[in-house]
Amino acid sequence: MESAAPIIAFDAMGADKGPNEMVAGLALALKEFKLQAEILVVGHSEALSKELRAFGLLEHPRVRCIPAADIISMEDKPAQGLRKRDSSMMRSLDLIKEGKAQGVLSCGNTACLMAGGTIKLRPMPGLERPALATIWPSKDRHFVLLDAGANPETRPEHFLHNAILGKNYARIVLGIDTPRIGLLTIGTEEGKGTENILQAHEYIKSAGPVLNYQGLIEGFQVFSNTCDVIVCDGFTGNILLKVCQSLFGVLKDYLKEELNKNWMRKLGALLSYGAFRAMKKQLNPEHYGGAPLLGLNGYVFKAHGSSNRHHIANALVIAEKVIRCQTNHQIGVDLALLKGQGELAPLGSPPGKAL
Amino acid sequence: MESAAPIIAFDAMGADKGPNEMVAGLALALKEFKLQAEILVVGHSEALSKELRAFGLLEHPRVRCIPAADIISMEDKPAQGLRKRDSSMMRSLDLIKEGKAQGVLSCGNTACLMAGGTIKLRPMPGLERPALATIWPSKDRHFVLLDAGANPETRPEHFLHNAILGKNYARIVLGIDTPRIGLLTIGTEEGKGTENILQAHEYIKSAGPVLNYQGLIEGFQVFSNTCDVIVCDGFTGNILLKVCQSLFGVLKDYLKEELNKNWMRKLGALLSYGAFRAMKKQLNPEHYGGAPLLGLNGYVFKAHGSSNRHHIANALVIAEKVIRCQTNHQIGVDLALLKGQGELAPLGSPPGKAL
Repeated sequence: MESAAPIIAFDAMGADKGPNEMVAGLALALKEFKLQAEILVVGHSEALSKELRAFGLLEHPRVRCIPAADIISMEDKPAQGLRKRDSSMMRSLDLIKEGKAQGVLSCGNTACLMAGGTIKLRPMPGLERPALATIWPSKDRHFVLLDAGANPETRPEHFLHNAILGKNYARIVLGIDTPRIGLLTIGTEEGKGTENILQAHEYIKSAGPVLNYQGLIEGFQVFSNTCDVIVCDGFTGNILLKVCQSLFGVLKDYLKEELNKNWMRKLGALLSYGAFRAMKKQLNPEHYGGAPLLGLNGYVFKAHGSSNRHHIANALVIAEKVIRCQTNHQIGVDLALLKGQGELAPLGSPPGKAL
Repeated sequence: MESAAPIIAFDAMGADKGPNEMVAGLALALKEFKLQAEILVVGHSEALSKELRAFGLLEHPRVRCIPAADIISMEDKPAQGLRKRDSSMMRSLDLIKEGKAQGVLSCGNTACLMAGGTIKLRPMPGLERPALATIWPSKDRHFVLLDAGANPETRPEHFLHNAILGKNYARIVLGIDTPRIGLLTIGTEEGKGTENILQAHEYIKSAGPVLNYQGLIEGFQVFSNTCDVIVCDGFTGNILLKVCQSLFGVLKDYLKEELNKNWMRKLGALLSYGAFRAMKKQLNPEHYGGAPLLGLNGYVFKAHGSSNRHHIANALVIAEKVIRCQTNHQIGVDLALLKGQGELAPLGSPPGKAL
């Protein structure tokens, strides 16, 4: 199900590389990635006009500038960020709240985006809070892992909610009708994990046909094409994401150094260059620039602070697709189904009673 | 401080590859790695005699066979394992309890080894339970990560205990006098993580000069030589270990496939073969075969069920070194120092009161 061209608020400030790289990413998305969305570019008018002119977007029919005087820095705590009402990030979120945009893309401070998104847009009915969903590369296909860091503390029912969110995100971005869901723990046998995880396992099982649940999975299975959606808490997910990105970097750097150690290896590397390029393209965990904060009344996308123009353009394309496919509507349908089955325990109640 | 040649109970059954590979590892350790320890080989007499004869160890002056009729399987639950009193694993642990050996090496069921070790040997005074410590490779040097899976549920004081255990293990296996300790969480700023982690952070800080504490670290820093000892809970540690091993495997397989796609790449791979070999040798997370269950009254070493002879020989050499250096004595000294400072909160008390 696809709707008309979406309107995306584009927080052009607050990224490490500044508005220049942000607008470069926008230009790339519009000109080469065929982005059809209408874009509201939010930030310092003067700086943005200059950049939009430089990239030939000042007169673009689907690009408009929305002024915002303030910037939320990476050091701002959520409370400080929320007080910066005229910041590009808060103004972008306001545009959704006011019905002037359906989504926002920001490279800024994650904690502030999370706090601002949750307070201004509120979680969808039936949910308590959003989760950050990331696309991970693997050998033959990709998978979705969430929560990648929105909430370090997680209760059992949040894992069930994350499974619903991840399922609907995977349907859109991976194009899989009934994605296989796995719950990440320390072993595949029943009873492996914390109390929290084992209760979550019962919750997710109870969702019945709403979720294509494969059960508990362990670390060895993350990259082995066992599941399309891996559900975990935000503490584990955030650490995993960062550790895998840094392991990939260490391996790449080490191999590069070793390949440069003598002329024979240098020649070898030159001849097999295509293989390295393919690996970097397929398996680099940084390939996907954007991650949505799923489960809010509105679409909030976060890209890395250090994103380059390619990451930003990618993130815009994914944001457009997720909005166009009315992902939140689908999430709402699943939540209603669960509620209809009487299988979704009321938030905070002991799982034993409700199931 | 080094003592006389240690006596190690060697659980020769229960590994995936059977007693043949175990005894092959022992032979490698004795003949090529210059293992000086006395080895009590525990298991089925008949099978072991055959293997020991095959590897020329039947008459070895430092090898003795201890019969045990039963085997704990990988499927046994801890309670089942504990009931198998004449199993090679339980008999090996008994040898420590009876003062006939100082340490045990087993490739068998981790949960049973952990339960048997904890019940038969008891945690050291001042500790509540053991932690599994693993050595990880990185670009320039190695680091220790613990707990890698002994206890999925962790209270704040356990992180402090893990820091003490990890420090003393790193001193022996990495040869660093005052290893840098880091507590793994989702960001480096104060306040990043769960309640549990933030309380643990206060505990570890309170250890003062006993620990060279570097503070909170995030996933990006795991491989960046920020710390020599990374402290985490057993849930996160176990998942990380398995995910990193499988990511390494996926990258290796993918690159291999790509390098075999045409003759030019094949030639290139041949010329640069040394670089791949160096990377596999330096950075393969499976390089180290054994991981000690630290903090018990006796030395318990666990090697992968799938260990080959090289892993087993490595594990024996590390076990000998750890016992020889009286690691547990050093751990006891540190625990006494903490107690003397009055900075170790009583187990289970709210940290606010004690600090």
